[in-house]
Amino acid sequence: MKNVPGFLLSGVSAGLKKDEKRDLALIFSTVPAHASAIFTKNLIKGAPVLVGQERIAGGLCQAVIINSVNANAFTGQKGYEDSLEIADTLSGRLGIDESLVIPSSTGVTGERLRVGKIKKSIPRLIKGLGEDNFREAAEAIMTTDSFPKYASRQLAVGEKTATVSAIGKGAGMICPNMATMLCFIMTDLNIQRKALSKALVAAAGGSFNAITVDGDTSPNDSVFILANGVLGNKQITEKSGDYGEFVDVLSSLCGEIAEMIVSDGEGATKVVRINVTEAGTERDAEKIARTIATSQLVKTAFYGEDANWGRIVAAAGRAGVKFDPEKIKLYFGGIEVFSKGVRSKPESRFASVFKEPSFTVTLSLGEGEAAYSILTSDLSHKYVSINSDYRT
Amino acid sequence: MKNVPGFLLSGVSAGLKKDEKRDLALIFSTVPAHASAIFTKNLIKGAPVLVGQERIAGGLCQAVIINSVNANAFTGQKGYEDSLEIADTLSGRLGIDESLVIPSSTGVTGERLRVGKIKKSIPRLIKGLGEDNFREAAEAIMTTDSFPKYASRQLAVGEKTATVSAIGKGAGMICPNMATMLCFIMTDLNIQRKALSKALVAAAGGSFNAITVDGDTSPNDSVFILANGVLGNKQITEKSGDYGEFVDVLSSLCGEIAEMIVSDGEGATKVVRINVTEAGTERDAEKIARTIATSQLVKTAFYGEDANWGRIVAAAGRAGVKFDPEKIKLYFGGIEVFSKGVRSKPESRFASVFKEPSFTVTLSLGEGEAAYSILTSDLSHKYVSINSDYRT
Repeated sequence: MKNVPGFLLSGVSAGLKKDEKRDLALIFSTVPAHASAIFTKNLIKGAPVLVGQERIAGGLCQAVIINSVNANAFTGQKGYEDSLEIADTLSGRLGIDESLVIPSSTGVTGERLRVGKIKKSIPRLIKGLGEDNFREAAEAIMTTDSFPKYASRQLAVGEKTATVSAIGKGAGMICPNMATMLCFIMTDLNIQRKALSKALVAAAGGSFNAITVDGDTSPNDSVFILANGVLGNKQITEKSGDYGEFVDVLSSLCGEIAEMIVSDGEGATKVVRINVTEAGTERDAEKIARTIATSQLVKTAFYGEDANWGRIVAAAGRAGVKFDPEKIKLYFGGIEVFSKGVRSKPESRFASVFKEPSFTVTLSLGEGEAAYSILTSDLSHKYVSINSDYRT
Repeated sequence: MKNVPGFLLSGVSAGLKKDEKRDLALIFSTVPAHASAIFTKNLIKGAPVLVGQERIAGGLCQAVIINSVNANAFTGQKGYEDSLEIADTLSGRLGIDESLVIPSSTGVTGERLRVGKIKKSIPRLIKGLGEDNFREAAEAIMTTDSFPKYASRQLAVGEKTATVSAIGKGAGMICPNMATMLCFIMTDLNIQRKALSKALVAAAGGSFNAITVDGDTSPNDSVFILANGVLGNKQITEKSGDYGEFVDVLSSLCGEIAEMIVSDGEGATKVVRINVTEAGTERDAEKIARTIATSQLVKTAFYGEDANWGRIVAAAGRAGVKFDPEKIKLYFGGIEVFSKGVRSKPESRFASVFKEPSFTVTLSLGEGEAAYSILTSDLSHKYVSINSDYRT
């Protein structure tokens, strides 16, 4: 991991998790940073997302405080006030404007936050700040995640080297009501806020918005990016020569975190990339890719290492997209398995692809030039256990 | 079960299943019957569906021959010719016009039918015809079904009593590639073909089209209705006084078969009715009901007997329908559990609802007067076993 100049992180136990495991994180920029975020598309948003939406609109952020265990969602007006109280306690302690602090939460829904425990831990949280505490902060935001998730990239900007680092979490929607996908990205680049927002949307499109564990979204899903300008480069805009490279680097970083999230999907034993190519429109390609990626029958076949091309073709057929069944071609890895309406070769010639921990399924429609790609996991006995047995 | 005058059924073993289990069925009307059908909406249709679509267009049918074990789907032109060959062999043996025989298949996809075995069994199949062989025929069309499915209704038409009986099968999409929902309805009513088609669409809308096991559809899903007029009543049209009652009786019959299919869903331990009420439009209500009914998180909660209202509300929130989260109300059985954005009462007050083998979840949107209702099952360890382990 690469430290990001001007950013400090911390992760402590506030006593929300058992056994003094970390459950409260802080990301702090020494100066107000340009900030942007993408929030859950779920109509029902958790309290911290409502606060975050209001505050990020100002364009600047200096601190994000994140608790795990409790999502503070479906908690009404009182829940909203809880999130505000935590953020405002932190801003008071840090001596910065209230509007510069954003709260974030992940965990159980429908239960009130233990605000007292969190407030009491804020002095320790601040005291623990350090440049290289990525692991500690990433651990503190874990719910059912089996490992902490963080990654870094660097890019040359003129004579200088900029750093982009991120921590993330998410393993499907879960315990006891759901888990949440969260990602916090920090960079020392000096970049115009509008360009930053646009870059984040572009990077998320091919990463966080193109993964699925179970098709369910949480009220709290959020991706934040903070750019504090400490690098001192000439401000990047959409027209700068460096903008394109920044988008590429950011996309690569988001892709790495997204892949970690899928591979840590609840009970996942396989990570599978679904490509739909030669579609008439990208929307068509996405609809088919998402239908395949969320089909229970396809996902159980992945789990069973069963190269079940028939289920994949049938899922494509019910996606609500018109195509000519005679023109489609299906590939497992690089091997053609279905073409002109029939299986291309004996199953023994491609069955081994599904034995790999990760592989690619490509469906070519022969209709046009649009494509879409999505990462998914399998549906295992353990997924059912995690999601049905948590209270027993 | 009530015999239907003028209809004979048969179910024999053609040697497709092991242990001489029945795997080949015949439904025969002594006279050509008005016939209508609803086929899978999947873009990719099995060979017998392609033949059936062509022949049902003529409006008359006298015999349906159905095999289990092999769906004859994804088998290309040769598969199409196989279905024709079976149907034409039967019509030759029965001495009726080719156009009056419809083939139907359910089972494995991607494999050629064992046409020789089926053709060789046709004489025995015909010999076995009898008025009350519902159970035999229903057994012959079973794939992963754990019990044969059949039901009857009667209705008064003037001085006469008409009978409507049906056999069905279906347990989710499965082994080795998928199973299929099939239903064959027989009645001795004299009813105009156009009215018959319209009644079938109406009855299927609230039954077969409003159930889900795993959201997957098969290339072979089909519902047929044959009305042979043997009752000798004055022909019923849409304007007849008896038409409305026929639709009600047919809907009730289809509802009973549909409920059997869901309760026999792969690995199902629960049957849950999802009602969405007070929606702005029926389309909105249906989108939300289907999203809840197919959510992996909701279905695993059903399995775990976990009255997890948060997952249901979150599934509604991602259905792509606009509503005001403050106005929605959620009920388990008749108990209000969520209102004005928060849980209405302690979970102990409603947790027991989920212990029942079947129960109702109602989400009221407070937006309008439209509603939609769908039956679903839970997602169990056994579902994963059935769909991942079948080749091992």
